[in-house]
Amino acid sequence: MTDLNVGVLGTGMVGEAIATRLVEVGYDVVMGSRDAANPKAVAWAERTGGRAGTFADAAAHGPLLFNATPGGASLDVLRAAGDLAGKVLADISNDLTSAAVKPVAAGLQAAFPELKVVKTLNTVNCEIMVRPDLLSQPHTMFVAGDDTDAKALVKGVLAKFGWPERDVLDLGGIDKAFAMEQYLPLWLALWGVKGDLRFNLSVVS
Amino acid sequence: MTDLNVGVLGTGMVGEAIATRLVEVGYDVVMGSRDAANPKAVAWAERTGGRAGTFADAAAHGPLLFNATPGGASLDVLRAAGDLAGKVLADISNDLTSAAVKPVAAGLQAAFPELKVVKTLNTVNCEIMVRPDLLSQPHTMFVAGDDTDAKALVKGVLAKFGWPERDVLDLGGIDKAFAMEQYLPLWLALWGVKGDLRFNLSVVS
Repeated sequence: MTDLNVGVLGTGMVGEAIATRLVEVGYDVVMGSRDAANPKAVAWAERTGGRAGTFADAAAHGPLLFNATPGGASLDVLRAAGDLAGKVLADISNDLTSAAVKPVAAGLQAAFPELKVVKTLNTVNCEIMVRPDLLSQPHTMFVAGDDTDAKALVKGVLAKFGWPERDVLDLGGIDKAFAMEQYLPLWLALWGVKGDLRFNLSVVS
Repeated sequence: MTDLNVGVLGTGMVGEAIATRLVEVGYDVVMGSRDAANPKAVAWAERTGGRAGTFADAAAHGPLLFNATPGGASLDVLRAAGDLAGKVLADISNDLTSAAVKPVAAGLQAAFPELKVVKTLNTVNCEIMVRPDLLSQPHTMFVAGDDTDAKALVKGVLAKFGWPERDVLDLGGIDKAFAMEQYLPLWLALWGVKGDLRFNLSVVS
Protein backbone atom coordinates (compact mmCIF):
# COMPACT_ATOMS: atom_id res chain seq x y z
CA MET A 1 0.00 0.00 0.00
CA THR A 2 1.51 3.27 -1.15
CA ASP A 3 0.34 6.84 -1.21
CA LEU A 4 -0.53 6.31 -4.85
CA ASN A 5 -3.08 3.60 -3.96
CA VAL A 6 -6.65 4.77 -4.26
CA GLY A 7 -9.92 2.90 -3.79
CA VAL A 8 -12.97 3.99 -5.74
CA LEU A 9 -16.33 2.95 -4.29
CA GLY A 10 -18.92 2.66 -7.03
CA THR A 11 -18.99 1.44 -10.62
CA GLY A 12 -21.46 3.89 -12.14
CA MET A 13 -20.69 6.65 -14.62
CA VAL A 14 -19.10 8.82 -11.93
CA GLY A 15 -17.06 6.01 -10.40
CA GLU A 16 -15.80 4.99 -13.81
CA ALA A 17 -14.85 8.55 -14.80
CA ILE A 18 -12.96 9.07 -11.53
CA ALA A 19 -11.25 5.67 -11.54
CA THR A 20 -10.20 5.98 -15.17
CA ARG A 21 -8.75 9.44 -14.66
CA LEU A 22 -6.95 8.32 -11.47
CA VAL A 23 -5.20 5.57 -13.44
CA GLU A 24 -4.44 8.06 -16.22
CA VAL A 25 -2.66 10.47 -13.86
CA GLY A 26 -0.63 7.73 -12.21
CA TYR A 27 -2.58 6.18 -9.33
CA ASP A 28 -2.95 2.48 -8.59
CA VAL A 29 -6.70 2.00 -8.41
CA VAL A 30 -9.07 -0.65 -7.10
CA MET A 31 -12.69 -0.14 -8.13
CA GLY A 32 -14.94 -1.57 -5.45
CA SER A 33 -18.47 -2.85 -5.65
CA ARG A 34 -20.70 -5.28 -3.72
CA ASP A 35 -19.52 -8.16 -5.86
CA ALA A 36 -15.85 -8.55 -6.86
CA ALA A 37 -17.07 -10.10 -10.12
CA ASN A 38 -19.22 -7.04 -11.00
CA PRO A 39 -19.05 -7.10 -14.82
CA LYS A 40 -18.75 -3.31 -15.15
CA ALA A 41 -15.83 -3.19 -12.73
CA VAL A 42 -14.14 -6.19 -14.33
CA ALA A 43 -14.51 -4.68 -17.81
CA TRP A 44 -13.17 -1.37 -16.53
CA ALA A 45 -10.15 -3.11 -14.97
CA GLU A 46 -9.37 -4.97 -18.19
CA ARG A 47 -9.62 -1.74 -20.17
CA THR A 48 -7.50 0.47 -17.92
CA GLY A 49 -5.07 -1.72 -16.00
CA GLY A 50 -6.84 -0.99 -12.71
CA ARG A 51 -8.27 -3.76 -10.54
CA ALA A 52 -11.79 -4.76 -9.55
CA GLY A 53 -12.73 -5.88 -6.05
CA THR A 54 -15.23 -5.67 -3.26
CA PHE A 55 -15.93 -2.46 -1.36
CA ALA A 56 -13.64 -3.87 1.36
CA ASP A 57 -10.90 -4.60 -1.19
CA ALA A 58 -11.07 -1.03 -2.46
CA ALA A 59 -11.08 0.40 1.07
CA ALA A 60 -8.13 -1.74 2.15
CA HIS A 61 -6.12 -0.75 -0.93
CA GLY A 62 -4.88 2.65 0.13
CA PRO A 63 -5.07 5.74 2.30
CA LEU A 64 -7.50 7.55 -0.02
CA LEU A 65 -10.99 6.49 -1.10
CA PHE A 66 -13.47 8.14 -3.42
CA ASN A 67 -17.16 7.71 -2.66
CA ALA A 68 -18.83 7.55 -6.04
CA THR A 69 -21.90 5.65 -4.85
CA PRO A 70 -25.35 7.28 -4.75
CA GLY A 71 -25.59 9.42 -1.61
CA GLY A 72 -28.59 7.51 -0.29
CA ALA A 73 -26.63 4.23 -0.42
CA SER A 74 -23.28 5.52 0.82
CA LEU A 75 -23.72 4.73 4.50
CA ASP A 76 -24.45 1.07 3.74
CA VAL A 77 -21.49 0.94 1.37
CA LEU A 78 -19.10 2.28 4.01
CA ARG A 79 -20.48 -0.20 6.55
CA ALA A 80 -19.54 -2.97 4.10
CA ALA A 81 -16.05 -1.54 3.54
CA GLY A 82 -14.26 -2.80 6.66
CA ASP A 83 -11.90 -0.75 8.79
CA LEU A 84 -11.89 2.88 7.70
CA ALA A 85 -10.03 4.40 10.66
CA GLY A 86 -7.50 7.01 9.55
CA LYS A 87 -8.45 6.85 5.89
CA VAL A 88 -9.46 9.83 3.80
CA LEU A 89 -12.78 9.70 1.96
CA ALA A 90 -13.32 12.13 -0.89
CA ASP A 91 -17.11 12.20 -0.96
CA ILE A 92 -18.29 13.26 -4.40
CA SER A 93 -21.83 11.92 -4.02
CA ASN A 94 -25.24 13.58 -3.91
CA ASP A 95 -28.54 12.46 -2.46
CA LEU A 96 -31.18 14.30 -4.43
CA THR A 97 -34.74 13.16 -4.99
CA SER A 98 -37.56 15.21 -6.43
CA ALA A 99 -38.73 15.79 -2.87
CA ALA A 100 -35.58 17.05 -1.21
CA VAL A 101 -31.82 17.25 -0.99
CA LYS A 102 -30.51 15.15 1.86
CA PRO A 103 -27.11 15.63 3.50
CA VAL A 104 -24.52 12.95 2.74
CA ALA A 105 -20.99 13.94 3.78
CA ALA A 106 -21.86 15.24 7.25
CA GLY A 107 -23.78 12.02 7.96
CA LEU A 108 -20.87 9.84 6.82
CA GLN A 109 -18.49 11.85 9.00
CA ALA A 110 -20.80 11.48 12.01
CA ALA A 111 -21.17 7.73 11.44
CA PHE A 112 -17.41 7.18 10.99
CA PRO A 113 -15.62 9.65 13.26
CA GLU A 114 -12.19 8.15 12.50
CA LEU A 115 -12.68 8.50 8.74
CA LYS A 116 -11.59 11.86 7.36
CA VAL A 117 -14.37 12.95 5.04
CA VAL A 118 -13.69 15.63 2.43
CA LYS A 119 -16.58 16.86 0.30
CA THR A 120 -15.66 17.86 -3.22
CA LEU A 121 -16.49 17.46 -6.93
CA ASN A 122 -20.22 16.91 -6.31
CA THR A 123 -21.11 20.23 -7.98
CA VAL A 124 -20.13 19.32 -11.55
CA ASN A 125 -20.80 16.60 -14.08
CA CYS A 126 -18.30 13.72 -13.97
CA GLU A 127 -16.67 14.82 -17.22
CA ILE A 128 -15.86 18.22 -15.71
CA MET A 129 -14.73 16.63 -12.44
CA VAL A 130 -11.78 15.00 -14.16
CA ARG A 131 -11.23 17.41 -17.06
CA PRO A 132 -11.84 20.94 -15.76
CA ASP A 133 -9.90 22.28 -18.75
CA LEU A 134 -12.92 21.45 -20.95
CA LEU A 135 -14.45 24.79 -19.94
CA SER A 136 -13.25 27.97 -21.62
CA GLN A 137 -12.87 30.16 -18.53
CA PRO A 138 -11.70 29.68 -14.93
CA HIS A 139 -14.32 28.04 -12.71
CA THR A 140 -14.57 27.11 -9.06
CA MET A 141 -14.34 23.81 -7.19
CA PHE A 142 -15.37 23.72 -3.55
CA VAL A 143 -13.79 21.61 -0.81
CA ALA A 144 -15.01 21.08 2.76
CA GLY A 145 -13.77 18.86 5.55
CA ASP A 146 -12.57 18.90 9.14
CA ASP A 147 -9.06 17.55 8.60
CA THR A 148 -6.49 19.85 6.98
CA ASP A 149 -4.12 17.06 5.90
CA ALA A 150 -6.99 15.13 4.38
CA LYS A 151 -8.04 18.20 2.43
CA ALA A 152 -4.46 18.69 1.24
CA LEU A 153 -4.37 15.09 -0.01
CA VAL A 154 -7.63 15.57 -1.93
CA LYS A 155 -6.52 18.94 -3.29
CA GLY A 156 -3.41 17.19 -4.61
CA VAL A 157 -5.61 14.84 -6.62
CA LEU A 158 -7.68 17.77 -7.87
CA ALA A 159 -4.47 19.39 -9.07
CA LYS A 160 -3.55 16.22 -10.97
CA PHE A 161 -7.01 16.21 -12.54
CA GLY A 162 -6.23 19.71 -13.80
CA TRP A 163 -7.90 21.99 -11.26
CA PRO A 164 -5.65 25.05 -10.83
CA GLU A 165 -4.99 25.79 -7.16
CA ARG A 166 -6.47 29.30 -7.52
CA ASP A 167 -9.83 27.79 -8.54
CA VAL A 168 -10.13 25.44 -5.55
CA LEU A 169 -12.07 27.16 -2.77
CA ASP A 170 -11.88 25.65 0.71
CA LEU A 171 -15.17 26.40 2.46
CA GLY A 172 -14.07 25.12 5.87
CA GLY A 173 -15.29 22.17 7.93
CA ILE A 174 -17.54 19.28 6.99
CA ASP A 175 -20.47 21.32 8.31
CA LYS A 176 -20.19 23.23 5.02
CA ALA A 177 -20.71 20.11 2.90
CA PHE A 178 -24.50 20.33 2.96
CA ALA A 179 -24.26 23.81 1.45
CA MET A 180 -22.43 22.25 -1.51
CA GLU A 181 -25.00 19.47 -1.71
CA GLN A 182 -27.92 21.92 -1.67
CA TYR A 183 -26.61 23.55 -4.84
CA LEU A 184 -27.69 20.50 -6.82
CA PRO A 185 -31.25 21.62 -7.61
CA LEU A 186 -29.79 24.79 -9.16
CA TRP A 187 -27.28 22.67 -11.08
CA LEU A 188 -30.18 20.61 -12.45
CA ALA A 189 -32.09 23.77 -13.43
CA LEU A 190 -28.99 25.09 -15.20
CA TRP A 191 -28.57 21.80 -17.03
CA GLY A 192 -32.20 22.13 -18.10
CA VAL A 193 -31.75 25.54 -19.70
CA LYS A 194 -28.25 25.00 -21.05
CA GLY A 195 -29.01 21.55 -22.46
CA ASP A 196 -25.41 20.57 -21.92
CA LEU A 197 -23.48 19.20 -18.94
CA ARG A 198 -20.33 21.17 -19.65
CA PHE A 199 -20.75 24.11 -17.29
CA ASN A 200 -19.80 25.17 -13.80
CA LEU A 201 -19.89 28.12 -11.47
CA SER A 202 -17.20 30.69 -11.11
CA VAL A 203 -17.26 32.77 -7.94
CA VAL A 204 -16.71 36.36 -9.06
CA SER A 205 -15.72 39.34 -6.89
CA MET B 1 -51.30 54.37 -11.45
CA THR B 2 -48.72 54.13 -14.24
CA ASP B 3 -46.31 51.48 -15.38
CA LEU B 4 -43.64 53.34 -13.45
CA ASN B 5 -45.46 52.81 -10.16
CA VAL B 6 -43.84 50.18 -7.97
CA GLY B 7 -44.71 48.99 -4.47
CA VAL B 8 -41.96 47.66 -2.23
CA LEU B 9 -43.08 45.39 0.61
CA GLY B 10 -40.62 45.57 3.47
CA THR B 11 -38.56 48.28 5.15
CA GLY B 12 -35.44 46.31 6.04
CA MET B 13 -32.00 46.68 4.49
CA VAL B 14 -33.08 44.87 1.33
CA GLY B 15 -36.35 46.78 0.96
CA GLU B 16 -34.55 50.07 1.45
CA ALA B 17 -31.84 49.24 -1.10
CA ILE B 18 -34.42 48.20 -3.71
CA ALA B 19 -36.78 51.11 -3.07
CA THR B 20 -33.96 53.66 -3.15
CA ARG B 21 -32.57 52.32 -6.38
CA LEU B 22 -36.04 52.18 -7.96
CA VAL B 23 -36.50 55.90 -7.22
CA GLU B 24 -33.00 56.58 -8.54
CA VAL B 25 -33.73 54.95 -11.90
CA GLY B 26 -37.05 56.74 -12.33
CA TYR B 27 -39.83 54.77 -10.65
CA ASP B 28 -42.56 56.19 -8.41
CA VAL B 29 -42.27 54.08 -5.27
CA VAL B 30 -44.43 53.37 -2.24
CA MET B 31 -42.63 51.51 0.53
CA GLY B 32 -45.14 49.41 2.42
CA SER B 33 -45.08 48.10 5.96
CA ARG B 34 -47.62 47.01 8.57
CA ASP B 35 -47.93 50.54 9.88
CA ALA B 36 -48.08 53.53 7.50
CA ALA B 37 -46.25 55.54 10.17
CA ASN B 38 -43.32 53.07 10.30
CA PRO B 39 -40.42 55.40 11.19
CA LYS B 40 -37.95 53.69 8.86
CA ALA B 41 -40.30 53.98 5.90
CA VAL B 42 -41.19 57.59 6.73
CA ALA B 43 -37.51 58.53 7.04
CA TRP B 44 -36.76 56.75 3.75
CA ALA B 45 -39.59 58.63 2.01
CA GLU B 46 -38.36 61.99 3.29
CA ARG B 47 -34.85 61.20 2.14
CA THR B 48 -35.67 59.95 -1.35
CA GLY B 49 -38.93 61.50 -2.48
CA GLY B 50 -40.71 58.13 -2.37
CA ARG B 51 -43.76 57.56 -0.20
CA ALA B 52 -44.48 55.42 2.86
CA GLY B 53 -47.70 53.49 3.34
CA THR B 54 -49.24 50.23 4.46
CA PHE B 55 -48.65 46.94 2.65
CA ALA B 56 -52.05 47.52 0.99
CA ASP B 57 -51.05 51.06 -0.06
CA ALA B 58 -47.88 49.70 -1.67
CA ALA B 59 -49.76 46.87 -3.38
CA ALA B 60 -52.45 49.21 -4.73
CA HIS B 61 -49.86 51.64 -6.06
CA GLY B 62 -48.85 49.90 -9.25
CA PRO B 63 -48.66 46.82 -11.42
CA LEU B 64 -45.32 45.69 -9.98
CA LEU B 65 -44.45 44.80 -6.40
CA PHE B 66 -41.17 43.73 -4.82
CA ASN B 67 -41.32 41.31 -1.92
CA ALA B 68 -38.48 42.34 0.36
CA THR B 69 -39.95 40.86 3.52
CA PRO B 70 -38.40 37.83 5.23
CA GLY B 71 -39.52 34.71 3.37
CA GLY B 72 -41.12 33.21 6.46
CA ALA B 73 -43.35 36.27 6.87
CA SER B 74 -44.19 36.85 3.21
CA LEU B 75 -47.45 34.91 3.05
CA ASP B 76 -48.90 36.93 5.92
CA VAL B 77 -47.69 40.15 4.32
CA LEU B 78 -49.38 39.32 1.03
CA ARG B 79 -52.59 38.42 2.86
CA ALA B 80 -52.54 41.92 4.36
CA ALA B 81 -51.90 43.54 0.99
CA GLY B 82 -55.41 43.52 -0.48
CA ASP B 83 -56.32 42.59 -4.04
CA LEU B 84 -53.28 41.21 -5.87
CA ALA B 85 -55.02 39.79 -8.95
CA GLY B 86 -53.05 40.47 -12.12
CA LYS B 87 -50.14 42.11 -10.35
CA VAL B 88 -46.53 41.05 -10.76
CA LEU B 89 -44.55 40.18 -7.64
CA ALA B 90 -40.77 40.16 -7.88
CA ASP B 91 -39.95 37.86 -4.97
CA ILE B 92 -36.43 38.55 -3.77
CA SER B 93 -36.85 36.94 -0.37
CA ASN B 94 -35.30 33.91 1.30
CA ASP B 95 -36.47 31.71 4.15
CA LEU B 96 -33.36 30.23 5.64
CA THR B 97 -32.93 29.03 9.19
CA SER B 98 -30.06 27.03 10.59
CA ALA B 99 -32.25 23.94 10.23
CA ALA B 100 -33.39 24.22 6.64
CA VAL B 101 -34.12 26.26 3.56
CA LYS B 102 -37.85 26.56 3.01
CA PRO B 103 -39.47 27.39 -0.33
CA VAL B 104 -40.98 30.87 -0.61
CA ALA B 105 -41.85 31.84 -4.18
CA ALA B 106 -43.61 28.61 -5.13
CA GLY B 107 -45.73 28.83 -1.97
CA LEU B 108 -46.70 32.44 -2.68
CA GLN B 109 -47.65 31.51 -6.25
CA ALA B 110 -49.77 28.60 -5.00
CA ALA B 111 -51.50 30.78 -2.41
CA PHE B 112 -52.19 33.59 -4.89
CA PRO B 113 -52.82 32.00 -8.30
CA GLU B 114 -53.78 35.34 -9.90
CA LEU B 115 -50.56 37.01 -8.76
CA LYS B 116 -47.67 36.59 -11.19
CA VAL B 117 -44.69 35.64 -9.06
CA VAL B 118 -41.18 36.07 -10.47
CA LYS B 119 -38.25 34.88 -8.39
CA THR B 120 -35.07 36.90 -8.79
CA LEU B 121 -32.28 38.76 -6.95
CA ASN B 122 -32.38 36.45 -3.90
CA THR B 123 -28.92 35.05 -4.69
CA VAL B 124 -26.89 38.20 -4.02
CA ASN B 125 -26.42 40.78 -1.29
CA CYS B 126 -28.71 43.79 -1.61
CA GLU B 127 -25.84 46.04 -2.68
CA ILE B 128 -25.11 43.77 -5.65
CA MET B 129 -28.84 43.46 -6.44
CA VAL B 130 -29.03 47.12 -7.35
CA ARG B 131 -25.45 47.78 -8.44
CA PRO B 132 -24.21 44.71 -10.33
CA ASP B 133 -21.46 46.86 -11.83
CA LEU B 134 -19.67 46.76 -8.45
CA LEU B 135 -18.15 43.41 -9.46
CA SER B 136 -15.17 43.33 -11.78
CA GLN B 137 -16.34 40.56 -14.11
CA PRO B 138 -19.63 39.46 -15.68
CA HIS B 139 -21.85 37.52 -13.26
CA THR B 140 -25.19 35.79 -13.47
CA MET B 141 -28.67 36.69 -12.22
CA PHE B 142 -31.36 34.01 -12.29
CA VAL B 143 -35.05 34.56 -13.00
CA ALA B 144 -37.91 32.05 -12.65
CA GLY B 145 -41.66 32.44 -13.04
CA ASP B 146 -44.64 31.07 -14.94
CA ASP B 147 -45.71 34.26 -16.75
CA THR B 148 -43.55 35.44 -19.63
CA ASP B 149 -44.83 39.02 -19.61
CA ALA B 150 -44.27 39.26 -15.87
CA LYS B 151 -40.69 38.05 -16.32
CA ALA B 152 -40.18 40.61 -19.10
CA LEU B 153 -41.38 43.38 -16.77
CA VAL B 154 -38.99 42.27 -14.03
CA LYS B 155 -36.11 41.84 -16.48
CA GLY B 156 -36.73 45.45 -17.55
CA VAL B 157 -36.17 46.59 -13.96
CA LEU B 158 -33.04 44.42 -13.73
CA ALA B 159 -31.74 46.17 -16.86
CA LYS B 160 -32.35 49.56 -15.25
CA PHE B 161 -30.47 48.39 -12.16
CA GLY B 162 -27.54 47.65 -14.47
CA TRP B 163 -27.82 43.91 -15.15
CA PRO B 164 -26.74 43.31 -18.77
CA GLU B 165 -29.30 41.19 -20.64
CA ARG B 166 -26.64 38.57 -21.41
CA ASP B 167 -26.10 37.96 -17.68
CA VAL B 168 -29.77 37.36 -16.84
CA LEU B 169 -30.53 33.65 -17.03
CA ASP B 170 -34.17 32.58 -17.21
CA LEU B 171 -34.45 29.18 -15.53
CA GLY B 172 -38.09 28.59 -16.52
CA GLY B 173 -41.22 28.32 -14.40
CA ILE B 174 -41.79 29.11 -10.74
CA ASP B 175 -41.05 25.45 -9.98
CA LYS B 176 -37.39 26.45 -10.46
CA ALA B 177 -37.52 29.10 -7.72
CA PHE B 178 -36.71 26.66 -4.91
CA ALA B 179 -33.50 25.73 -6.72
CA MET B 180 -32.50 29.41 -6.49
CA GLU B 181 -33.51 29.52 -2.83
CA GLN B 182 -31.53 26.38 -1.98
CA TYR B 183 -28.34 28.09 -3.11
CA LEU B 184 -28.43 30.26 -0.01
CA PRO B 185 -26.45 27.96 2.29
CA LEU B 186 -23.62 27.97 -0.26
CA TRP B 187 -23.88 31.77 -0.50
CA LEU B 188 -23.51 31.95 3.29
CA ALA B 189 -20.50 29.62 3.20
CA LEU B 190 -18.91 31.76 0.48
CA TRP B 191 -19.55 34.90 2.52
CA GLY B 192 -17.83 33.15 5.41
CA VAL B 193 -14.63 32.45 3.51
CA LYS B 194 -14.57 35.62 1.45
CA GLY B 195 -15.39 37.89 4.38
CA ASP B 196 -17.07 40.30 2.00
CA LEU B 197 -20.58 40.50 0.54
CA ARG B 198 -19.45 41.71 -2.85
CA PHE B 199 -19.45 38.47 -4.83
CA ASN B 200 -21.69 36.45 -7.06
CA LEU B 201 -21.71 33.41 -9.29
CA SER B 202 -20.96 33.39 -12.97
CA VAL B 203 -22.16 30.38 -14.92
CA VAL B 204 -19.24 29.34 -17.11
CA SER B 205 -19.35 27.03 -20.14
